[in-house]
Amino acid sequence: MVTTNGTNGTNGTNGTNGVNGTNGASAAERPSRNPYASDGDNFLSNVGRFKIIESTLREGEQFANSFFDTETKIKIAQALDDFGVDYIELTSPAASEQSRLDCEKICALGLKAKILTHVRCHMDDARMACAIPGLSGLDIVIGTSSQLREHSHGKDMDHIQRTAVEVINYVKSQGLEVRFSSEDSFRSNLVDLLTIYRAVDQIGVNRVGIADTVGCASPRQVYDLVRTLRGVVSCDIECHFHDDTGCATANAFCALEAGATHIDTSVLGIGERNGITPLGGLMARMIVGNRDYVKDKYRLEKLKDIENLVASAVEINVPFNNPITGFCAFTHKAGIHAKAILNNPSTYEILNPSDFGLSRYVHFASRLTGWNAIKSRCEQLGLHMSDTEYKQCTAKVKALADIRKLTLDDTDAIIRNFHKNVTAGADVPLVEGLTQGEKRLLDEEEAVLDQAANKKGKLDSVAAGLPVDAANSV
Amino acid sequence: MVTTNGTNGTNGTNGTNGVNGTNGASAAERPSRNPYASDGDNFLSNVGRFKIIESTLREGEQFANSFFDTETKIKIAQALDDFGVDYIELTSPAASEQSRLDCEKICALGLKAKILTHVRCHMDDARMACAIPGLSGLDIVIGTSSQLREHSHGKDMDHIQRTAVEVINYVKSQGLEVRFSSEDSFRSNLVDLLTIYRAVDQIGVNRVGIADTVGCASPRQVYDLVRTLRGVVSCDIECHFHDDTGCATANAFCALEAGATHIDTSVLGIGERNGITPLGGLMARMIVGNRDYVKDKYRLEKLKDIENLVASAVEINVPFNNPITGFCAFTHKAGIHAKAILNNPSTYEILNPSDFGLSRYVHFASRLTGWNAIKSRCEQLGLHMSDTEYKQCTAKVKALADIRKLTLDDTDAIIRNFHKNVTAGADVPLVEGLTQGEKRLLDEEEAVLDQAANKKGKLDSVAAGLPVDAANSV
Repeated sequence: MVTTNGTNGTNGTNGTNGVNGTNGASAAERPSRNPYASDGDNFLSNVGRFKIIESTLREGEQFANSFFDTETKIKIAQALDDFGVDYIELTSPAASEQSRLDCEKICALGLKAKILTHVRCHMDDARMACAIPGLSGLDIVIGTSSQLREHSHGKDMDHIQRTAVEVINYVKSQGLEVRFSSEDSFRSNLVDLLTIYRAVDQIGVNRVGIADTVGCASPRQVYDLVRTLRGVVSCDIECHFHDDTGCATANAFCALEAGATHIDTSVLGIGERNGITPLGGLMARMIVGNRDYVKDKYRLEKLKDIENLVASAVEINVPFNNPITGFCAFTHKAGIHAKAILNNPSTYEILNPSDFGLSRYVHFASRLTGWNAIKSRCEQLGLHMSDTEYKQCTAKVKALADIRKLTLDDTDAIIRNFHKNVTAGADVPLVEGLTQGEKRLLDEEEAVLDQAANKKGKLDSVAAGLPVDAANSV
Repeated sequence: MVTTNGTNGTNGTNGTNGVNGTNGASAAERPSRNPYASDGDNFLSNVGRFKIIESTLREGEQFANSFFDTETKIKIAQALDDFGVDYIELTSPAASEQSRLDCEKICALGLKAKILTHVRCHMDDARMACAIPGLSGLDIVIGTSSQLREHSHGKDMDHIQRTAVEVINYVKSQGLEVRFSSEDSFRSNLVDLLTIYRAVDQIGVNRVGIADTVGCASPRQVYDLVRTLRGVVSCDIECHFHDDTGCATANAFCALEAGATHIDTSVLGIGERNGITPLGGLMARMIVGNRDYVKDKYRLEKLKDIENLVASAVEINVPFNNPITGFCAFTHKAGIHAKAILNNPSTYEILNPSDFGLSRYVHFASRLTGWNAIKSRCEQLGLHMSDTEYKQCTAKVKALADIRKLTLDDTDAIIRNFHKNVTAGADVPLVEGLTQGEKRLLDEEEAVLDQAANKKGKLDSVAAGLPVDAANSV
């Protein structure tokens, strides 16, 4: 593949038209405004000033494959701290004796990130957590949906509120931060939710939390609920989204647009079932919203290493389509895409791979390959030809790619041999090791191409670009 | 793990409160309405009547790893047709000679799904496509963003519109369906977009398309643009979302809420870079929006096989966190989750695995395990004990899981040995093969647990549920 290092000129400055359009640029410099762009500049929006509560060591421990020994937990905590997350959330010390010991050890590391632990709304758990030296705060939680009240803890809203007030007052008396969250907020009664959030806000809770525990929420639903809550409480608002229906990253973004302040993430999104908003996915989404804030605050070039560390610890592969770090996230294949990317990367990229210490690739070994990609590869190989010859070479690559899967080495060999035939008058076969069947198919394909070219009355029509660049895009 | 086959009572009927709340249920049966629920019932919304344009054989062919030979294309087309997709979109016949031959073969299969091919907005390409017998329609596309107009094709909006009108009139004259789409719609000038969409609507285009070609769009931006377009054209609206910033599924949902009619998908989302809205992810999202429509129209139990077919063809693994079919999508681990799921699956599941021919699992081999999961497993193994004994057994499992990663076999062995010791007065070790170091750690852990129990003045306090069920949730 062709690796390009061109600067992705317009990324971030006009990533989504209108978001950054008003940041002091003159009318002439400004991209044309799109009135339907995301409202990053809206007075409610925290798209340009969000904080991350990183929960790989809590939610992530609930992932089916997770078993974190103490040493692994420490490595992950240190890597997250290096990356620049604001908070690191740990499994409750009440979960097991080792969980309690690990909380103590991580609190003793002296990290820049604040350390939280996540406990049930229960005085026994709160006391155990508050006894841990160096802990910054507690995230307390209780289920408020009718499903959870009926089938899990069996408590009514009055009881929940009384317990919450007692626990919050206790944690505050110990000098620690405290967040109160409902569980399954989107299936809870709205009036019940607002009532309890108002009550805990009035006694000085630091944050209230909205949690889509089952992954049912949709983006506009999130926006509307957070915006309403923003009008009811004056404290910070933390949001936690499960990804069962593929909306966890989008929901986080809409929550920030509506005034949420903190987003829960985990590395690769690991957590219960198929997990929560992934740290990398959130970075991809937010850098489009406000590039300066994200680049200044987080060490994005560390993302790939952190993901590999966690993937290895829980014995999974990084998904092929992972945001930013998936193996093909910056690979361009169709002819039209490749041509434009080689001309200006912003045409088909909203993220700049170099922001993450990565490179882009232009694929040049398929039936969808266009002549611009072949020309670019020839130039990398130091093989210069005329545009007509690049186009003829491309037609050969495409004909062979129609017959069998080409490796990059195959394609380089075709290019080198074609160049030798054209420039040195040689007559070497373009590719070695074709079977008889493949040779017959290739002859047939070339006959069709020749016929098409003759029909149009010009022998180089194929080379002139019609089929060559006709690979679809969008 | 514990496999449960309980019916997920409330899924679909009140998946998200309010969405289905008004579907004829009496006030007493109705779940309490959430005014911030997704507006599936809104007059604009097509959440309950969307169509799928499946593009694995077009967008998916642009995935870096894709090489589909004819036989594979036919298998994929047949599988998608069995699944029930409305349209199957193929690579342009102008891309290569084999692409053209494959179009002909797939059109000749006599599938129920309509067959489309995706071509540049160019008369030569349109003529080549219209010559294919059995084709239902053409999806034509041209870049309209300033980025693409400047750095790709170099044409102005007037030229684009004249060409579009010529191509659309030609395709209609051939008796075929035709869609006109912009490319990179969210970075295009709004007035330019609406002008050209209105023009093609007036000459009878079947669908207009909005494409987030670079994956920059956010959900509320999508909603607003589609809603505006809905007021300008009377034809159908197709949407195509890339997933670079993790919003492709959410954006599809918001587009349907705003009045879009057709969504482009590919199996596992494969496509340029990290791809587009995945077929499975869209199913997960839409079944929460309107379970009856999705279940009646699509053969959801085929999803896993189709994904495996395509994953194998392009040599990738299904991501660990893939919606619905990821290996842990229905696995519940933390004590609180497991307890509630065993009681009623709707507590922590918005999707019902049996809708997809799958099962749920309750994890019972970790430090986060609660006694309800152990009790459930004991019952499956036919080992009956008192609740106090189940809790004591759970404390042993948790203590061992604190020291090393337990396999399911390990945990079954612990349970069997504990049962033997308790009921038959035996004194067998709970687990074989502990190292000296592990034995020492276990002794320490048990001493701490005993001390804690003594401190609280009741020997079975640990077993009574405090640390046992304290694993976090949300």
